[in-house]
Amino acid sequence: MTAYESRVRNSALRNRVSSAEEAAAMIRDGMTVGMSGFTRAGEAKAVPLALAERARAEPLKITLLTGASLGNDLDKTLAEARVLARRMPFQADPGLRRAINAGEVMFIDQHLSETVEMLRTDQLPPVDIAVVEAVAITESGGIVPTTSVGNSASFAILAQKVIVEINLSQPAALEGLHDIYIPTHRPTRLPIPVVTPESRVGMPFIPVPPEKIAAIVITEKKDSTSTIHDPDDGTRQIAGHLNEFLLGEVRKGRLGQSLQPLQAGIGTIANAVMHGFLDSPFHDLKMYSEVLQDSTFDLFDAGKLNFASGSSLTLSENRYHRVLERLGDYKHKLILRPQEISNHPEVVRRLGIIAINTALEFDIYGNVNSTHVAGTRMMNGIGGSGDFARNSYLSIFVTKSLAKGGDVSSVVPMVSHVDHSEHDVDILVTEVGLADLRGLAPRERAHTIISNCVHNSYRDGLLEYYRRAELRGGHTPHILEEALSWHVEMEKTGRMPGRKPETIPA
Amino acid sequence: MTAYESRVRNSALRNRVSSAEEAAAMIRDGMTVGMSGFTRAGEAKAVPLALAERARAEPLKITLLTGASLGNDLDKTLAEARVLARRMPFQADPGLRRAINAGEVMFIDQHLSETVEMLRTDQLPPVDIAVVEAVAITESGGIVPTTSVGNSASFAILAQKVIVEINLSQPAALEGLHDIYIPTHRPTRLPIPVVTPESRVGMPFIPVPPEKIAAIVITEKKDSTSTIHDPDDGTRQIAGHLNEFLLGEVRKGRLGQSLQPLQAGIGTIANAVMHGFLDSPFHDLKMYSEVLQDSTFDLFDAGKLNFASGSSLTLSENRYHRVLERLGDYKHKLILRPQEISNHPEVVRRLGIIAINTALEFDIYGNVNSTHVAGTRMMNGIGGSGDFARNSYLSIFVTKSLAKGGDVSSVVPMVSHVDHSEHDVDILVTEVGLADLRGLAPRERAHTIISNCVHNSYRDGLLEYYRRAELRGGHTPHILEEALSWHVEMEKTGRMPGRKPETIPA
Repeated sequence: MTAYESRVRNSALRNRVSSAEEAAAMIRDGMTVGMSGFTRAGEAKAVPLALAERARAEPLKITLLTGASLGNDLDKTLAEARVLARRMPFQADPGLRRAINAGEVMFIDQHLSETVEMLRTDQLPPVDIAVVEAVAITESGGIVPTTSVGNSASFAILAQKVIVEINLSQPAALEGLHDIYIPTHRPTRLPIPVVTPESRVGMPFIPVPPEKIAAIVITEKKDSTSTIHDPDDGTRQIAGHLNEFLLGEVRKGRLGQSLQPLQAGIGTIANAVMHGFLDSPFHDLKMYSEVLQDSTFDLFDAGKLNFASGSSLTLSENRYHRVLERLGDYKHKLILRPQEISNHPEVVRRLGIIAINTALEFDIYGNVNSTHVAGTRMMNGIGGSGDFARNSYLSIFVTKSLAKGGDVSSVVPMVSHVDHSEHDVDILVTEVGLADLRGLAPRERAHTIISNCVHNSYRDGLLEYYRRAELRGGHTPHILEEALSWHVEMEKTGRMPGRKPETIPA
Repeated sequence: MTAYESRVRNSALRNRVSSAEEAAAMIRDGMTVGMSGFTRAGEAKAVPLALAERARAEPLKITLLTGASLGNDLDKTLAEARVLARRMPFQADPGLRRAINAGEVMFIDQHLSETVEMLRTDQLPPVDIAVVEAVAITESGGIVPTTSVGNSASFAILAQKVIVEINLSQPAALEGLHDIYIPTHRPTRLPIPVVTPESRVGMPFIPVPPEKIAAIVITEKKDSTSTIHDPDDGTRQIAGHLNEFLLGEVRKGRLGQSLQPLQAGIGTIANAVMHGFLDSPFHDLKMYSEVLQDSTFDLFDAGKLNFASGSSLTLSENRYHRVLERLGDYKHKLILRPQEISNHPEVVRRLGIIAINTALEFDIYGNVNSTHVAGTRMMNGIGGSGDFARNSYLSIFVTKSLAKGGDVSSVVPMVSHVDHSEHDVDILVTEVGLADLRGLAPRERAHTIISNCVHNSYRDGLLEYYRRAELRGGHTPHILEEALSWHVEMEKTGRMPGRKPETIPA
């Protein structure tokens, strides 16, 4: 028995095993390809590399759809090889970002729950080929995903052909972790039966007719590990403010000691905030999130967290090995779902989620920019933040009050791009403090945000802007000709103008 | 038997009948009051007037919550009497608007599905007293609403005391039209069982313990009639473009001849667009909307529409009488629901709604401003547009391409306020044409919008802005120092600067 035979349990499929190059040859110029991969976890690894290689010899441009960002520098490699004509719904790679901002790659930045909904109704070009990383193919041809589900299930179901990458480095024990549920057709859809983070409502594999599996590629390359940083003073202060606020909510009887299911966005700050629950009196917590990071497992190990539902596992080097080796210890507390379900507005609203996402900047009225530097240059994409923020019980955005060593304030007169409007933002937290915006009108929001969240070096500058704007009147006072002037100045000089002079280094 | 005895069927409650002044006396300075009323339909009429009267003699400021806008100039009267300290979640009155923009009334502009969700979880100040217009009180004390449900059910259930206004001018035949369903508590909520516009899942009255009904006021004042205008050339062209687009979708097999359940926002343009379906080949249509306007009944009478679910009936003078007299003909095709359910993200996504809402302005990338003139002055509020746009199958925004006799373009370089980001906008329509933005990146969106939706007199101006912005690069190219300059100039001179000189009247 070869190394992969136990992984390809449908023996009739074993003759489809081929090289990455042979499999990639099925992908032709102009095709739309749906690949597995969500926040650097569980992406197809060999076929995209073979594609990039081929693109050196022949014209090859595709539309690439994934769950979210890819690991192993694949987005970089594909962008450099100029394989990507179009890319959706999310990315987080500096090389691809450069190509997007140069207008070389058309990037469609979408709410992560919506891509497959649009594909299913033929509102996006159809997926010609799906490329899905798997730990195994079952006897019936079912595809068992690895460390993420993302959009893989719908890609495989909707595509003409499926290429499966069996990754031998992903432990077979991952099987059983996934819960693949596909919503029924509209307008006759039934309720999505997820009523708690623990609800198992689907199958442990992606059901596709075996004849659709056109090629199987055997790989061994590991997932990239997470690039998040350890908590620092600033992120610990953010976590502290949030813990204190939530304690207040418990005291007021609005929340119990177990809070409500938690969601945390990708990245260092959200991870640090979740980490902060270690030092809190809350217990029997649950997560209903998209990406599960180190903090999820820290909370499991500390006995704080009872259950976590997500769409991917994105862990640091150390954590990755410890979790995958001890998967049996965690498996009964974990579910990985399609991102359509992990982020589904129906479920998010039903469960009453506490959503914690990261802002790039926010303004004095509570509008949040999650994506565009100076209103023009894409960072990563909106991701799932909109799916969660709009429908959550509490929509919380976190960021440090300063960027670029203090030259930039994360709180500005008017955000240069809006991803989340004031209607979708309940709580803002920086290391300075927390603003509770619930039930406040814009003028009240401005006072609360400027007092509580702004760094001391920019507070007077923002207050001065607000006071002059207020004289002009309006529900949301602004001086339109100055509203974006902080960004304009930042673009010209690298520094925002509202800073208190004595705080500027000589 | 007095005129109202058949309406107050719980005989023990008949001794609670009192004057509006006596009932209003229960409302004290500083209280939070929840009143019925949604888009000028079914508002409490006598108690608010008595409140305004009292405010002339004594200090009296309240927080007023409603479903949406009130009729009978009540928002104006209350604003002029300075009764309103705070107002949420929507209004549409010029007098109140003035007070809001002057900062005299704190207005909290909310997604209409969210207000009672926040009240129920104690995230807004509790409702002290609910004032609800009704056609009847049942034997068990159930309150039967009139021409709207709005937030009345949750207000009555959550309030300490309830004042019921029995309106004898509202026909008793309205009983049976309503479907009152209140979602269960989170985080243990069950799916909301609405699976088609026709689903009846609740009770035909608002269940409250009879002892909570503190006063009953008998009134006879009619609802205000709708202020919408008849379709004109521009709105007919908008309807024509939309019909043509939807026909294309049917031809491509994406939609059937009955389309999917339709939602249309309040106002002249949305009503005209619905009216346009009269001349379309579509049939067996259904509506799942918030406000049902004249067009709903035109479509019923033409045999085009099979069923309509909404939260209110807001009709013109003629239509109002004809519908209320012939209610028996329509009743089996109509449901009025709480706005939490008519607008619920869970149901909107499940049914796959085609959502048609009105934009104040939109920008070359498809961001929509629904609320703020020149980024500062509130018009009405976001209403239900966000509930529908985010979760719909197709999110369509309509507006005429010009305002102020051509001095203002409804398409601008950057909107001065964002209510709906590019992520939530699929289709834009003006009388010039239609832009299908699905699957397009921002640079592609700009070309499509400028080519298809912009009035000829501003097209060159926008294209020139876009071309210069594109030279600077970025995923969403902008020239930040000019992005709002069209609005700045409009504020100064009354005219936007991008207009082709020969189109400016001498």
